[in-house]
Amino acid sequence: MPNTVAAPVVVVAPDSFKGSLTAQRAADAVATGLRRVWHNADVRIRPLADGGEGTLDALLAQGGKRITLTVRNAAGEPCKAASGVLADQSAIVESAEIVGLTDPAGTRISIENRSTLGLGDAIRSHLDKGAQRILIALGGSSTNDGGAGLLNALGVRLLDEEGDALPPTPASLEQLASIDVTGLDARLRRCELVAMTDVDNPLCGPQGASAMFGPQKGAKPSQVATLDHALKHFADLLEAALGKRVRDLPGAGAAGGLGFALHALGATFQPGAEIVAKEVGLDAALENADWLITGEGRSDEQTLHGKTPYIACAHARSAGVPATLLSGAIAPDALPALSQVFSGCFSPAPGPMTLDAAISGAEVLLADAAEQLARLFESARAATKRPTTV
Amino acid sequence: MPNTVAAPVVVVAPDSFKGSLTAQRAADAVATGLRRVWHNADVRIRPLADGGEGTLDALLAQGGKRITLTVRNAAGEPCKAASGVLADQSAIVESAEIVGLTDPAGTRISIENRSTLGLGDAIRSHLDKGAQRILIALGGSSTNDGGAGLLNALGVRLLDEEGDALPPTPASLEQLASIDVTGLDARLRRCELVAMTDVDNPLCGPQGASAMFGPQKGAKPSQVATLDHALKHFADLLEAALGKRVRDLPGAGAAGGLGFALHALGATFQPGAEIVAKEVGLDAALENADWLITGEGRSDEQTLHGKTPYIACAHARSAGVPATLLSGAIAPDALPALSQVFSGCFSPAPGPMTLDAAISGAEVLLADAAEQLARLFESARAATKRPTTV
Repeated sequence: MPNTVAAPVVVVAPDSFKGSLTAQRAADAVATGLRRVWHNADVRIRPLADGGEGTLDALLAQGGKRITLTVRNAAGEPCKAASGVLADQSAIVESAEIVGLTDPAGTRISIENRSTLGLGDAIRSHLDKGAQRILIALGGSSTNDGGAGLLNALGVRLLDEEGDALPPTPASLEQLASIDVTGLDARLRRCELVAMTDVDNPLCGPQGASAMFGPQKGAKPSQVATLDHALKHFADLLEAALGKRVRDLPGAGAAGGLGFALHALGATFQPGAEIVAKEVGLDAALENADWLITGEGRSDEQTLHGKTPYIACAHARSAGVPATLLSGAIAPDALPALSQVFSGCFSPAPGPMTLDAAISGAEVLLADAAEQLARLFESARAATKRPTTV
Repeated sequence: MPNTVAAPVVVVAPDSFKGSLTAQRAADAVATGLRRVWHNADVRIRPLADGGEGTLDALLAQGGKRITLTVRNAAGEPCKAASGVLADQSAIVESAEIVGLTDPAGTRISIENRSTLGLGDAIRSHLDKGAQRILIALGGSSTNDGGAGLLNALGVRLLDEEGDALPPTPASLEQLASIDVTGLDARLRRCELVAMTDVDNPLCGPQGASAMFGPQKGAKPSQVATLDHALKHFADLLEAALGKRVRDLPGAGAAGGLGFALHALGATFQPGAEIVAKEVGLDAALENADWLITGEGRSDEQTLHGKTPYIACAHARSAGVPATLLSGAIAPDALPALSQVFSGCFSPAPGPMTLDAAISGAEVLLADAAEQLARLFESARAATKRPTTV
């Protein structure tokens, strides 16, 4: 088909396709498909993330500097972890990179012995480098320590009845007699902490960190109550020491209670996808754009509750740009609702196939599917140039 | 999204989705999806077919009269079979309806005992009703009798050495001593016969009916040479009796050699999909149309060799209308070639799924997919109304 109108400006801004592609690779695959149709298209690639695994990569894709820090993993052992300093000098620390659920070294020990010490290590490193603003991506953690590890690494002391130091793990929190916050790193007072999460849960109770997210981190049903009780005891003492109550603030239950510790430190909380969208300049990319393509591994009802593609779509609509969803799979029961938001919801599956084949062939399938969408988009644009027929 | 341009005119012209939906039901499902986006759209439904199973239904969908004939099935037993008279008074006889590969009553006996007597019965019935033009859809037959049954039912006698009549089956053709064509129904001279097929094979040899299509009808490898030899012997005698050689004409090998018999009767041969496209008025439907959607159960390299969606696409392109392919599955290796022809190739699969689920949910999936395509099409049309940005 001849191109009868100029190639459009397309913004490609997917989340990662969990289990198969990073957001960057997904975006590159989509761009490859688009360029088969529009050879000189202005394709603006803006990989996104929601504050979980891949957030660091998405933010650094637009510039900034990747650095490697020596921190402690969830098991408390030294390890190397990637971190970053963005173009605006904000530091970025990703929980999934340091105490990630997919890190076998950190998760070979059980949940009651894991801690977030490494996140405190990372924040301290950035403070050492003069950071004035630190973004902390909360998603994808394996821990449930209420952020005790983070605080401990930043100078908070956890003490038993004899005044001896306790390790910052769920198993030890029950034995806490007091918390000494006098040693808390003073530089934190002059540093803006931004917690990236889309979890609104409180620290404790039936909607709390232990009950809602403990099981997916390996907590047995019988452990949940114990973990929850330990966090409650920790909160009682920490809040008393700081003179403020934060355990019920939205997001206190994020990342096994890491959100609670960050609230205690006065962090601001923002949806991860919104922060990433802002940091990567999504709105600027949407200026004068004709089309946005977003996507994720699987889209369902949850997608409409603030997931990355929804955020991308909301920005696109604000800019008057149609947003198409191209996800690994679209839950059929969610299609009616998704259809009200997106200008078409598609899967790259070219027919019946196994999940394994879809995952192993994801990059090729995604490029092919984007090409087909572009062909249809192009023919529809060209069609409107013909005399009106209705 | 607001509709900023008038709803488009869309022609929906699929083949059947073999194993799941007739062309009519597939087209209706697609139309359902389109109307969710464009409530008052001018959707022109033109189910297509290629001369195989479903051809009768596709032709009658645009008018004409369905009738029931008493004929013989492939086993020679009386049965009821649907046939039709189109609006232009042409009769339509479908091989798949009378000696169909999916008819258990006809195919419980082995291939060397099956005959096309029933097709001769049907043609005779239409001649009785005064037919001046009879379309014969050749696809989907279970027989391999060289059309001996058809000719026999129309007055041709097959004789052994004693001058006794032989049944018109492959098993008997070997014993043929002579063929008497003097009793051939004289009305055939004043009736136009049109054979609908997209098979170009000759009657005999390695590209012939027995070798190419015998196995899929149940012929064992050891039977193929015998079947081929029987057809050759039959052709020798029939051609001698008629004084013309037709066994190597394109299509003589269609429908187990039924094409040979029709060539012997002076039938014209045309691609089934072209005849259906013409009879259902596809070109008229494409006038002033903005978009055509076609499809089939599975699209692959063969699709480009004259299959129904390709014919539909060719007509659309002649009319300046973009044609989108929406098939149950798209063979990934054929996608580059298909992409050069269609304005987007899509499957309704919303993600990884089994073939069974795709088939059982075909109608819902197709409607959903058409809706999504329409949403994208609409947003692309609307986008071109905005100020040019490139």
